[in-house]
Amino acid sequence: MNDDAQQKKGLTRRNFLKSAGGVAAVAGMAAGGLAAGVREGSAAAGSMPKKWDGTYDVVIIGSGFAGLAAAMEAKNAGASAVVIEKMAVHGGNSIINGGDFCAPGTRLQKEAGVQDSPDLMYNDMMKAGLYLNHPELARTLADQAKDALEWCENYVGAKFTRLNFHGGHSVKRANQTVNASGSELVNKMLAKTRALGVAVQTRTKMERMIADKDGRIVGIEVKTGYRFPDEKSGKTAYIKARKAVILTSGGFSNDVPLRRIEDPRLTEKFESTNQPGATGEALLAACLAGAMDVQMDWIQLGPWTSPDEKGFGNVPLFCERLVGYGPMIDPAKGKRFFKETGNRKERADAIILLGHPVIIMGDSYAVPKQVFPRALEKGLESGAVKKFDSLEALAKNYAMPVEAFKQEIARWNSFVEKKKDSDFDCMIFPDARPTVTPPFYAARLWPKVHHTMGGLVIDTNAQVFGFDLKPLKGLYAAGEVTGGVHGAVRLGGVAMADCVVFGRIAGKNAAKETAWG
Amino acid sequence: MNDDAQQKKGLTRRNFLKSAGGVAAVAGMAAGGLAAGVREGSAAAGSMPKKWDGTYDVVIIGSGFAGLAAAMEAKNAGASAVVIEKMAVHGGNSIINGGDFCAPGTRLQKEAGVQDSPDLMYNDMMKAGLYLNHPELARTLADQAKDALEWCENYVGAKFTRLNFHGGHSVKRANQTVNASGSELVNKMLAKTRALGVAVQTRTKMERMIADKDGRIVGIEVKTGYRFPDEKSGKTAYIKARKAVILTSGGFSNDVPLRRIEDPRLTEKFESTNQPGATGEALLAACLAGAMDVQMDWIQLGPWTSPDEKGFGNVPLFCERLVGYGPMIDPAKGKRFFKETGNRKERADAIILLGHPVIIMGDSYAVPKQVFPRALEKGLESGAVKKFDSLEALAKNYAMPVEAFKQEIARWNSFVEKKKDSDFDCMIFPDARPTVTPPFYAARLWPKVHHTMGGLVIDTNAQVFGFDLKPLKGLYAAGEVTGGVHGAVRLGGVAMADCVVFGRIAGKNAAKETAWG
Repeated sequence: MNDDAQQKKGLTRRNFLKSAGGVAAVAGMAAGGLAAGVREGSAAAGSMPKKWDGTYDVVIIGSGFAGLAAAMEAKNAGASAVVIEKMAVHGGNSIINGGDFCAPGTRLQKEAGVQDSPDLMYNDMMKAGLYLNHPELARTLADQAKDALEWCENYVGAKFTRLNFHGGHSVKRANQTVNASGSELVNKMLAKTRALGVAVQTRTKMERMIADKDGRIVGIEVKTGYRFPDEKSGKTAYIKARKAVILTSGGFSNDVPLRRIEDPRLTEKFESTNQPGATGEALLAACLAGAMDVQMDWIQLGPWTSPDEKGFGNVPLFCERLVGYGPMIDPAKGKRFFKETGNRKERADAIILLGHPVIIMGDSYAVPKQVFPRALEKGLESGAVKKFDSLEALAKNYAMPVEAFKQEIARWNSFVEKKKDSDFDCMIFPDARPTVTPPFYAARLWPKVHHTMGGLVIDTNAQVFGFDLKPLKGLYAAGEVTGGVHGAVRLGGVAMADCVVFGRIAGKNAAKETAWG
Repeated sequence: MNDDAQQKKGLTRRNFLKSAGGVAAVAGMAAGGLAAGVREGSAAAGSMPKKWDGTYDVVIIGSGFAGLAAAMEAKNAGASAVVIEKMAVHGGNSIINGGDFCAPGTRLQKEAGVQDSPDLMYNDMMKAGLYLNHPELARTLADQAKDALEWCENYVGAKFTRLNFHGGHSVKRANQTVNASGSELVNKMLAKTRALGVAVQTRTKMERMIADKDGRIVGIEVKTGYRFPDEKSGKTAYIKARKAVILTSGGFSNDVPLRRIEDPRLTEKFESTNQPGATGEALLAACLAGAMDVQMDWIQLGPWTSPDEKGFGNVPLFCERLVGYGPMIDPAKGKRFFKETGNRKERADAIILLGHPVIIMGDSYAVPKQVFPRALEKGLESGAVKKFDSLEALAKNYAMPVEAFKQEIARWNSFVEKKKDSDFDCMIFPDARPTVTPPFYAARLWPKVHHTMGGLVIDTNAQVFGFDLKPLKGLYAAGEVTGGVHGAVRLGGVAMADCVVFGRIAGKNAAKETAWG
């Protein structure tokens, strides 16, 4: 009858007064802000396990870029650490990510003669984010992205060999991994993490955060041997976090019930680019333990996905390398309809407004020059990318009005010659050439749910804030599970930087916490 | 050492298995959704008071339209009830509201020959809300608004005597109280509530929601004798809610720390139209007890407020009656710049983009015809509204280029003659006339924070949802403290309908709950 005893336990007058004394310390709270005693009403007080099945200084949930960066930094700062991962394989979305790491002032930018700065990157992020970004977080990311990239190269050993452009950025600043995939980085991170002596336990799902009476997160309840998505699988265990828990569980693009609450349009009719485990239960478990969420209704649709392949596929790599080199066409009219280098939200909204898929295309100069050979090859293999001997053949395949389309291509080419798009203000790169040389390549585009901008509120130390607007002791977070870094729109190529910058910060700071027991 | 004992209490294997059995019942949860045991980690379990200072079936927090509607319905359904209000006076923002109650198919619409329907109102709400609205909530409001208005007239005894238009609506559907203020309704609601035997306790602030071990809300901790904004004032007491707590505490337009987390642009440099007590601590206390928030980053700026008066002032009533009858002018150019009848967000964004205040103006036909006499009189008295003998004098006062301005007025007048605005597609009402007859009246406009669209997730029963995506037993909510009804943008005149419709639903459903003790 433990639970009844607990229910009868009173909040004593003495305890109330004790906590009331803390009110004056609530920094920055306006009149009418949260008052005494609130923390006592939160979190998992009273649910401590009788025994812990494992004890570490730092417990990291999630094994993508952010989680592994956090694990390495925590371990290197002298903390014992463990990484748990609910899926059967490590890497989460990071392992299927396109491998573009935006940072200003990098080696590849210098080699390409690209002028860039943290200020420019910060301004691009804020503008795309509709200024909803938490400025200090966007600033931290822009300031530390280059250092984080160099850590990935020099410490982790990942290779970055190509400079790419993403819509919404002022310059080319996406440093791409040698295999055009996040797997290059995340696999090397995993090897390094293990070499440091940190275990990465797959099939281990966090069920609940455990807090002490003051609301401090002191550990987690997990299921080991969990087989996604079988919620009846696995065995309960308790892991004690002497210093802190770090949540790096990613976003919720594949969590239809949650995303329908945040943005009711995003029913099961919209596919996602994410791995199946990109669901929000870990984020929600943190909220149930008192953590505050923010801007959860900003859910990004990728404008470069194809209805002709599953998941992320190869078309995004095809499309994003071509924007600024080839036109995007509404097949119903054979005309362009939007700025190809516009940001993700603008482009996805424009396509959804048309109500049908559009095409992105390039010629035999632009495509081999821009598109990663394997992505092109795989796209052609699956049929998601098609190859045509003439503009007429291309038009016919997509049932486009041929003459209107040919006129539009001529118009586009005149813009490319002048390096100025008078219709939609698309950025046209210095090395772009008119789209004239067959064969032509094209792919259909229709948006898929790609990234969830919102998540837990963190400060520049990656410490999570609670609904009492105070730091939530014992809980850090980094990567897509956090909110505020990107505001309304995450720009392409900024996720890797986000995860590595804040993952490292979280790991270092978690290791500095005072151990509770 | 109660707290230590509590901390040591374990979550037993038996309890874990018991709750695990409930997983299959989680309706609508995708794979990877919340699993067993989460509810045990939430809310205020373990913080029950030793004794209750008062016991009611239903405890209502907030004394605006929603709270009083809930109180009356709960009482009329046979429940005992109490209303607590943290401020010294009842009524919250409702008492300073403009008194416009949007509903389709009303008596005043019929008298004016206006064709309207719940479908039309629903579509207007969804379009303005950028389709982020929870459709079933918007539908409930549109379907029940007319009945709610008639309840206010026939049961409460409030008088509605005039039909107004608000930007973003397809037709005139705002039924205005006889004194152009929400006080007409809220004061009569208060009298009726008291006549029913329900006490309304002012200076009583909710500090914390109290939950039992299963997370059910069973009461609240309050401070009686609280003197806003002194957080050290007042005396702790506990009120037991045998059936339910209903949260109707309003929005957080005046809570700078909270609104800066949700939308970091909204620093203390932006004023608010709201009463000083419009802060978010009650909403946050609900979140700390496990309630889920949604769309909190959609914070509405009123485009019709003036920098020349404090708070809401009189200019909004001047401005909103004139749109569609007189032009809105950018004084820097002497030109119109946006659709006067556009929705609030569009107009506020357009003004912020200009970066300086604009003016709204009308002539001596439009102004006396449209503007409530007392609002005009008070505006003129304070100097926020000015009167000019000629267009030249008006232009001079705002340092406008005179000739450009006069040309623009001539252009506007040509649109009014044709009843079609070729520049910005402003709605021009059938009875509008060209702006030609002196004296002319004008006021400056600069946005202020007006309404917070986001808040607690509720269902159509006004029951609050938790972060486990399940109904949170014992907690209902209505009015501005809830989210999802309006999506991205609340249209003018829909707040009263929102509060009364969902306040009534909450009161009726709370009264039907099974008492727990």
